Amino acid sequence: MLKQISLSTNKKFDLIDITSNIKKIVETSKVKDGLCVVYAPHATGAIIINESADPELKKDILDQLAELVPDHGKYRHDRIDNNAQAHIKTALLGSSESIPIKDGKLQLGTWQAIMFAELDGPRDQRKVLVKII
Amino acid sequence: MLKQISLSTNKKFDLIDITSNIKKIVETSKVKDGLCVVYAPHATGAIIINESADPELKKDILDQLAELVPDHGKYRHDRIDNNAQAHIKTALLGSSESIPIKDGKLQLGTWQAIMFAELDGPRDQRKVLVKII
Amino acid sequence: MLKQISLSTNKKFDLIDITSNIKKIVETSKVKDGLCVVYAPHATGAIIINESADPELKKDILDQLAELVPDHGKYRHDRIDNNAQAHIKTALLGSSESIPIKDGKLQLGTWQAIMFAELDGPRDQRKVLVKII
Repeated sequence: MLKQISLSTNKKFDLIDITSNIKKIVETSKVKDGLCVVYAPHATGAIIINESADPELKKDILDQLAELVPDHGKYRHDRIDNNAQAHIKTALLGSSESIPIKDGKLQLGTWQAIMFAELDGPRDQRKVLVKII
Repeated sequence: MLKQISLSTNKKFDLIDITSNIKKIVETSKVKDGLCVVYAPHATGAIIINESADPELKKDILDQLAELVPDHGKYRHDRIDNNAQAHIKTALLGSSESIPIKDGKLQLGTWQAIMFAELDGPRDQRKVLVKII
Repeated sequence: MLKQISLSTNKKFDLIDITSNIKKIVETSKVKDGLCVVYAPHATGAIIINESADPELKKDILDQLAELVPDHGKYRHDRIDNNAQAHIKTALLGSSESIPIKDGKLQLGTWQAIMFAELDGPRDQRKVLVKII
């Protein structure tokens, strides 16, 4: 089963918690024991798994990413499209994560949430693919 | 098949080689051709695949991570829980890796080991989930 | 089905687009709905998914990685083998990515390409494993 989550983002940088959407998809699939693959089909947006409970932590993550890959670096790509920073961060964070399913439940840890990392927003049509095996 | 590896860690930062545990799980599963998904259900610990033979390299990896995400940065989250650095490193390293199985064997390269990255230890009850498909 | 892509690289640092090889493997597999796992069995080379259309962006990505993990850092491992930087970058980028397949097609986004990141080349015998489920 393959499902799509559609998102519209309204900031340049954001971490958007999609855990409840994915849990619903796992439930609907009726898969008892399997795997859930979460995939971001974008070159300027990524998938991360981390704590979502503290909104301040999300800011810390995004700020530290900006520290590592500055917004106004001397990127060659920025002459074509002013978003090299987003591409580089996406390469670092990665486009997919795979989470085991057991007894019909996603095996996330207590503090884990699945998030889409918007790195070049705002964008109307972001999507995340969720494959259940 | 889903198995759990339990770990207790005794340093703040450590890379713990779990390759032999995972090889044993693959063997027990009797799966000839398939996939092995290794998953860390934590927000302050991650999965990496790298060389484990040289203990000095592990220190290099952990030190460079500390260079990129300093221990005593100005993280907002640290007012709640003094471990923002661990969350940020976990986001960078990722929570899952998927390794093909062929002829009953994990297709690791010569210098590859699968490691749990402890980034906020010591901890009594870390676990790693291993899903065989 | 498990297939191997063989590569020889001719630079120290390079991002090599292997999307068309992988698309061919997916086609040959005749799998309509499934998953494609791309795996690099190396400790000094990784898998990334990003834009490949602009060659300048590839340089930006490699340059920023060098900014984060300098070539001539004080790495202990370099006394044994002068490539600690490549190991650290591989840990950051990751060894596997999983992409859904739908209607026989890899569900890559418009700007996404799958690339092998050579981080310690040139090398005669690099390989990438492609598992179709």
